[in-house]
Amino acid sequence: METALRLKNISVIAFDADDTLWHNENIYINTHEKFKQLLRQYHNDEWIQQRLNETEIRNLQHFGYGIKGFTLSMIETAIELSEGRVSANEIQKIVDLGKEMLRAPVELLDGVAATIAQLASSYKLMLITKGDLLDQESKIARSGLGDYFSHIEVVSEKDVETYRRLVAKHGIAPERFLMVGNSLKSDILPVIAMGGQAVYIPYQTTWEHERVVEEDLAAKRYVTIQNISQLQDWLEISRES
Amino acid sequence: METALRLKNISVIAFDADDTLWHNENIYINTHEKFKQLLRQYHNDEWIQQRLNETEIRNLQHFGYGIKGFTLSMIETAIELSEGRVSANEIQKIVDLGKEMLRAPVELLDGVAATIAQLASSYKLMLITKGDLLDQESKIARSGLGDYFSHIEVVSEKDVETYRRLVAKHGIAPERFLMVGNSLKSDILPVIAMGGQAVYIPYQTTWEHERVVEEDLAAKRYVTIQNISQLQDWLEISRES
Repeated sequence: METALRLKNISVIAFDADDTLWHNENIYINTHEKFKQLLRQYHNDEWIQQRLNETEIRNLQHFGYGIKGFTLSMIETAIELSEGRVSANEIQKIVDLGKEMLRAPVELLDGVAATIAQLASSYKLMLITKGDLLDQESKIARSGLGDYFSHIEVVSEKDVETYRRLVAKHGIAPERFLMVGNSLKSDILPVIAMGGQAVYIPYQTTWEHERVVEEDLAAKRYVTIQNISQLQDWLEISRES
Repeated sequence: METALRLKNISVIAFDADDTLWHNENIYINTHEKFKQLLRQYHNDEWIQQRLNETEIRNLQHFGYGIKGFTLSMIETAIELSEGRVSANEIQKIVDLGKEMLRAPVELLDGVAATIAQLASSYKLMLITKGDLLDQESKIARSGLGDYFSHIEVVSEKDVETYRRLVAKHGIAPERFLMVGNSLKSDILPVIAMGGQAVYIPYQTTWEHERVVEEDLAAKRYVTIQNISQLQDWLEISRES
């Protein structure tokens, strides 16, 4: 890979938040488990999981991303797959699962605290995240990282148009903008399409809806690292080159 | 009132959106009616309304403002006040009420389209609104007014700190910032506290939670008008003075 040459002249580094700075997917996986347990009397796990995924995708247009919409989708799935037999008390348990998710502690990924603190002394840092506004703000506050970021943007969709709008809004030259994230679909490909640079840090799992077909990736160029701690090294290399 | 003298040297006019530019409260009132109808077999209207208000306030810390959180609060209220007797099909009807709200057409208030178009030629306009990000963005897009606003800010809370942060972010002198809205609590009082100017346009109804105790208003100074069309006149007067 010749990608080492690409991470240069960066003026702004933007980070995705969920599963890039702190764990998020595991909160959903954990909730999926509890949801399946609750509905096990009506159907098997695989069927429940499949129906929940379908409901989520179908409801994205109404609810967007975030825990509140996910909770409504769990409720709708429970009603549908039990053919109306699910009880009010079981539905209250689903509402409570949603509240539990909203209250879940923010656990930083390994290396995040040190890396962000270090980079903040040399670069302007941004946070760009999808989801419910209040929930994301609360997580940023609880993460203890908020002060390192010059700009925090909670957006409803992360596509080429969104990134184009954000760099224009903040007066950043696209080629000097670096995005770091765990989603090829949301953090990497649209940024490259806009003329920016990108570093991909895969998370241990990737949400169904976020998977990108392999061929979409052909001829795309970005850096892949395994841990955020390696980011500093790539930037050093690129500065020396 | 000597308030005519105050609307001067304005550089940026910011507008609240719901019930200032377009009808919103009537969508909630309409849904409250349908909700009460659905639960009439369990309790009387007044009790249902009271319990729903209580659940909403209690859940604000978890869910924030917006239709998705409101829908979850309706579901929780239905389960509680029916003591678990509400059926899955009735709960699905509540989820559907939520989706209906999200899809409701955006109806501009009288005079809005002409006033916004006119003001946009002389002032920088901003939109500052609470609620779910995706939902607000969708309403702005459907309103046809989006292009008139230089900046659109969807925030989780409208307090003094929020307005202070926003004027700093956009490099606006507080005394040259005018906020126009229908909520004394969210649009008027915090803006005056920050040193800005404010125009209050009461909506036909005011949400329970938004009411401000009369004494809080003592010694506060702001302009009250009945329709947004009058805004231009106040600005003209202030410019001549």
